[in-house]
Amino acid sequence: MPDSADTKTFDVVYELSAVASGVMRNDVRGRMLEPVLDHIFEMATDEGGYHGGDASAPPPLSYFTTGLVTCLMTQLRASAKRLRIPIGLPKIDARIEWKGDQVGNLPYVARGHAFRFDIDLQTDTPLAEQKRVLAAATKSCFVEVILNVSIHHRLRIDGKWVDV
Amino acid sequence: MPDSADTKTFDVVYELSAVASGVMRNDVRGRMLEPVLDHIFEMATDEGGYHGGDASAPPPLSYFTTGLVTCLMTQLRASAKRLRIPIGLPKIDARIEWKGDQVGNLPYVARGHAFRFDIDLQTDTPLAEQKRVLAAATKSCFVEVILNVSIHHRLRIDGKWVDV
Repeated sequence: MPDSADTKTFDVVYELSAVASGVMRNDVRGRMLEPVLDHIFEMATDEGGYHGGDASAPPPLSYFTTGLVTCLMTQLRASAKRLRIPIGLPKIDARIEWKGDQVGNLPYVARGHAFRFDIDLQTDTPLAEQKRVLAAATKSCFVEVILNVSIHHRLRIDGKWVDV
Repeated sequence: MPDSADTKTFDVVYELSAVASGVMRNDVRGRMLEPVLDHIFEMATDEGGYHGGDASAPPPLSYFTTGLVTCLMTQLRASAKRLRIPIGLPKIDARIEWKGDQVGNLPYVARGHAFRFDIDLQTDTPLAEQKRVLAAATKSCFVEVILNVSIHHRLRIDGKWVDV
């Protein structure tokens, strides 16, 4: 890519400065620079007592998992609009599992284990069309495209979960 | 893995519920379930006007990038402690770049482009030891280990940036 004269390529760029400001606390200031210069955001993270922190803010993985799920939420709506396929207000219930392997008291080694998204587009649009929206959204999602774990997506159709 | 009788494996599990609550806004409630049951966190995301949103909260990628950078911040400190290598309070300046390719008005296709972390451990500890801390931390970081893009890390040594 780009694979045709008709393809336009754009940049998405973020810059962040993070400083350690407590035993396990971090304070972050960041900004999207491209495609538009956005407002500066400020976020704080901490760890709970099990990780030696003071629990003064949510842990880093709560930010990561929120970013992962909501990036897809945005793209579901953007894709539906661009494909002119009607959907309702999306809901996602996500379960995200990792494993850590530790030898003695050495630093542990992390790995992704199982990521599952149950997606309810709250619409009567047929399954085939909902699948088109989801397929496009997963390719547009800036987080999902850079993961080396596959996410198990299910769609809610007629009150039942359907693997897609 | 596990690769020896001495290896202990633990789980890290998050569950989140995200609901669309505005044109592009989402409200998220989530919780870490393992290794310990943590407090419920609540986070909101929105998009700016360039993406059809109301900018009522930071965009999803601000949460993702914050999670990515701070997860490594935590692991730098945890790894240094476990390896008994002294470091100061870490600082990271990060630049995270994606590209999007769009044909006409179809949903675009996202891809990672260049991720760079400039890391200042604020210590006189020799480079070789700092590299050991960083190498361990990148393997412990639950976000970095599930990325299919490599992060270009630099360490601040004697006032200069060193590629590692």
